[in-house]
Amino acid sequence: MEDMRISPAVPRGSPAKEQQAAGVGILLQIMMLVLSFVLGHVLRRHRFYYLPEASASLLIGLIVGALANISNTETSIRAWFNFHEEFFFLFLLPPIIFQSGFSLQPKPFFSNFGAIVTFAIFGTFVASVVTGILVYLAGVTYLIYKLPFVECLMFGALISATDPVTVLSIFQELGTDVNLYALVFGESVLNDAMAISLYRTMSLVRSNMSSGQNFFMVVVRFLETFVGSMSAGVGVGFTSALLFKYAGLDIDNLQNLECCLFVLFPYFSYMLAEGLGLSGIVSILFTGIVMKHYSFSNLSDKSQKFVSAFFHLISSLAETFVFIYMGFDIAMEQHSWSHIGFIFFSILFIGIARAANVFSCAYLVNLVRPAHRKIPMKHQKALWYSGLRGAMAFALALQSVHDLPEGHGQTIFTATTAIVVLTVLLIGGSTGTMLEALQVVGDDHDTLGESFDTNNGYRAPTYEGESSSGNRFKMKLKELSKSTASFTAFDKNYLTPFFTSQNGDEDEHDELFGDSRGGGYG
Amino acid sequence: MEDMRISPAVPRGSPAKEQQAAGVGILLQIMMLVLSFVLGHVLRRHRFYYLPEASASLLIGLIVGALANISNTETSIRAWFNFHEEFFFLFLLPPIIFQSGFSLQPKPFFSNFGAIVTFAIFGTFVASVVTGILVYLAGVTYLIYKLPFVECLMFGALISATDPVTVLSIFQELGTDVNLYALVFGESVLNDAMAISLYRTMSLVRSNMSSGQNFFMVVVRFLETFVGSMSAGVGVGFTSALLFKYAGLDIDNLQNLECCLFVLFPYFSYMLAEGLGLSGIVSILFTGIVMKHYSFSNLSDKSQKFVSAFFHLISSLAETFVFIYMGFDIAMEQHSWSHIGFIFFSILFIGIARAANVFSCAYLVNLVRPAHRKIPMKHQKALWYSGLRGAMAFALALQSVHDLPEGHGQTIFTATTAIVVLTVLLIGGSTGTMLEALQVVGDDHDTLGESFDTNNGYRAPTYEGESSSGNRFKMKLKELSKSTASFTAFDKNYLTPFFTSQNGDEDEHDELFGDSRGGGYG
Repeated sequence: MEDMRISPAVPRGSPAKEQQAAGVGILLQIMMLVLSFVLGHVLRRHRFYYLPEASASLLIGLIVGALANISNTETSIRAWFNFHEEFFFLFLLPPIIFQSGFSLQPKPFFSNFGAIVTFAIFGTFVASVVTGILVYLAGVTYLIYKLPFVECLMFGALISATDPVTVLSIFQELGTDVNLYALVFGESVLNDAMAISLYRTMSLVRSNMSSGQNFFMVVVRFLETFVGSMSAGVGVGFTSALLFKYAGLDIDNLQNLECCLFVLFPYFSYMLAEGLGLSGIVSILFTGIVMKHYSFSNLSDKSQKFVSAFFHLISSLAETFVFIYMGFDIAMEQHSWSHIGFIFFSILFIGIARAANVFSCAYLVNLVRPAHRKIPMKHQKALWYSGLRGAMAFALALQSVHDLPEGHGQTIFTATTAIVVLTVLLIGGSTGTMLEALQVVGDDHDTLGESFDTNNGYRAPTYEGESSSGNRFKMKLKELSKSTASFTAFDKNYLTPFFTSQNGDEDEHDELFGDSRGGGYG
Repeated sequence: MEDMRISPAVPRGSPAKEQQAAGVGILLQIMMLVLSFVLGHVLRRHRFYYLPEASASLLIGLIVGALANISNTETSIRAWFNFHEEFFFLFLLPPIIFQSGFSLQPKPFFSNFGAIVTFAIFGTFVASVVTGILVYLAGVTYLIYKLPFVECLMFGALISATDPVTVLSIFQELGTDVNLYALVFGESVLNDAMAISLYRTMSLVRSNMSSGQNFFMVVVRFLETFVGSMSAGVGVGFTSALLFKYAGLDIDNLQNLECCLFVLFPYFSYMLAEGLGLSGIVSILFTGIVMKHYSFSNLSDKSQKFVSAFFHLISSLAETFVFIYMGFDIAMEQHSWSHIGFIFFSILFIGIARAANVFSCAYLVNLVRPAHRKIPMKHQKALWYSGLRGAMAFALALQSVHDLPEGHGQTIFTATTAIVVLTVLLIGGSTGTMLEALQVVGDDHDTLGESFDTNNGYRAPTYEGESSSGNRFKMKLKELSKSTASFTAFDKNYLTPFFTSQNGDEDEHDELFGDSRGGGYG
């Protein structure tokens, strides 16, 4: 009866009470979200690039989390702030990655496809292994806390996942070279998939303890997963294009139905890939690219406007939320700060590992590229610098706490947390300065205009004329480039007519390539 | 190593495996969602009203659930289909209710406000008590399974929550009388809040076993909750109006920021109310009404189009998903069919209870209404018939399984499940026929045009002229009506100028009242 008098609708420990706690938790999250948006807007308006939106969100999360920690918030409310990897992978990540693909400029992406794949697959592999070996060696020499070799490799894998959000939003704001943008963007999206795959394989190797001989297998498996996921994504994209071409939903009063279906397809692709044991990230990325390229033009005008705004909105919300969520969780979780040496040295090591990744891959790519298309040193430096770690590394590190016993996971988690916070705040805050120092800002756009628009395609002719120093390896790589290039013609003559409606096709197509520049991506 | 060879990325029982199960589960849900949308579209196109979209969704869920049951789907996948009350209350319900408020025609709603509140509060109370007493008496006389009196009242409360989705979509499709629409709509939205409140109070009474003397308290508490929630909702709505009026976000390139903030406000309102221990449903409903009326016109044109489409999209997805989700869960859950008599009689009893609700409340309302505005018998019959039970009753029944011991909750759950399926399929399927038989379809729109538009307000003058048979009770009721009516003038002279930007105000305002008719609601 006492309870009754205070608040009859809210008994203690009942579902109603739990719901109230959920209400408070979510309320706080919404308030931080609003604060982040407003703060980000104000900072951008005043061209203050030292605190990008993502860093601001992370800081807000950290501060509110610290306050909640001090004020002894109830555990039922806290429960709403624990970073759930499942929630991240199933609900926050898909819209972010889809929007990346949907707002992609296909020309620079595909013309750099070979380089991107090199950086993402070979490079991430190199970075993981280098990090793992360095951490292991430092452990053996008692420089830092000693971890078993396989666990070092797991750490190397998860810490090699770079985050696209912060750096790209600054690239976009400042207007940097499109090829550099494509490289940074493509690498960071694809290497997430590589890092997950590597991490999981290492985790398996660890539980089965059958070391050695697997390094080659890992690459093969990754390629299998990659090709499978890409096929699934492209398949779903093409299916959607045909559906919207023939279903006749572009009548005025069916706009809602049209949009509902359009919005469901990307998620379908993600879950299809995950359900098949493939990589949802890769799948939804390619669905995004295909849907923008083909399905999008089959929609009615109103729906086109709506879905663009919709995906932009959803992905901004998800992005901002990820950083807040991460910041809050970092402030709330228990950390084992005893291994401060581990943190310091791993920051050093990932710097070295990223250098090994970027410069070796750039060397390989430059081997096969013609002189005027080589990746310049300043782009390599920018690429090296842009490797900040974000939500993907954090989510995998959180998983490692469950996967690894005896506080090893805890050590890895704390180190990752520190690396994420430091790189997001420091690298995120200094990217603008760095880009200006390397002189890759602004004017380089013209270079892009020259190199692409005159060829009216993915630079196909350039490759044909080039044939010096022909060892077998280089030839193979060049063939791959050529096949990418001839894709343009195939697309123009067969794919586009088949998958899209034919009204005013040429203009629409050009517009598609152009408009994502206007501010679509992010 | 065996595992390795088959699929290295997906070890059994690991997070990756769980994620794969989640992928399959969500994939299935998306497929059902797409199927529902397409089926609903086809049925509507062929004007087949015997299987409305909600019924179709429920059936799809039931069928797929039954198939999954037969085919022995893995438990990890099944876990993704269990109906979680929390998920329903926190994520599916808010968009549905907000869209109800956002697409509301304020004129008929407010002019019938007194009647709606009577039906929702007094009527639901009557219906709950009548159902509870009948079930108890039937139990005492060994007609059906005997439940304790308080549990009978809990059952009465939860089964009195009527569902707006199905009936209203048909009302809308066929174009029925606007006053009837407002009554059915308003009652079903508000009585959800009453039913929750009653259910929780009864649940508390049960655990404290201090019966009697609480009936009056329940009403008082409910009114407190109602007024508090309404104030919170209206407050958040007005805050948003002022923000969008003065923040200057209606510039072209800030559309995304504007939309992000606009989209967060309703959810903020819901969580604020829940966090305060009030009713989120009532709060978000009024936020919807206020935001449509004031904040909406402060947005840029593009954002206006976008947010309308956005809320429509999100609520359609949530609505359809609720029915699929419910159908699937019904097919998967264990039911105690031994109490078939309980089910049969409770269907009979809720029919009687709803009659007691509708006809007694209509009598009360008609006492104070002038002759030409009395609720006609055919509207009363339509109102009685429209009381189908949906997701709210289902969610509360599911909660009762946890709340009540000894299989009592199970009995209530099974009965509720049966009632939901029967009423959704039977009443949902026959609403079209019923509306035509009662002749409340189509032409009655003109009556509305006459009664509202000539007065240019909420019918204020009509009340002033009327003053016969003045007993105290009737006078009080009339005063309430009058205050509602004079609100129009207040709104026009003070609220609208204060909360909205003043450009082309009059037209915009009229358009606001008008356009929700066009197909906005649903």
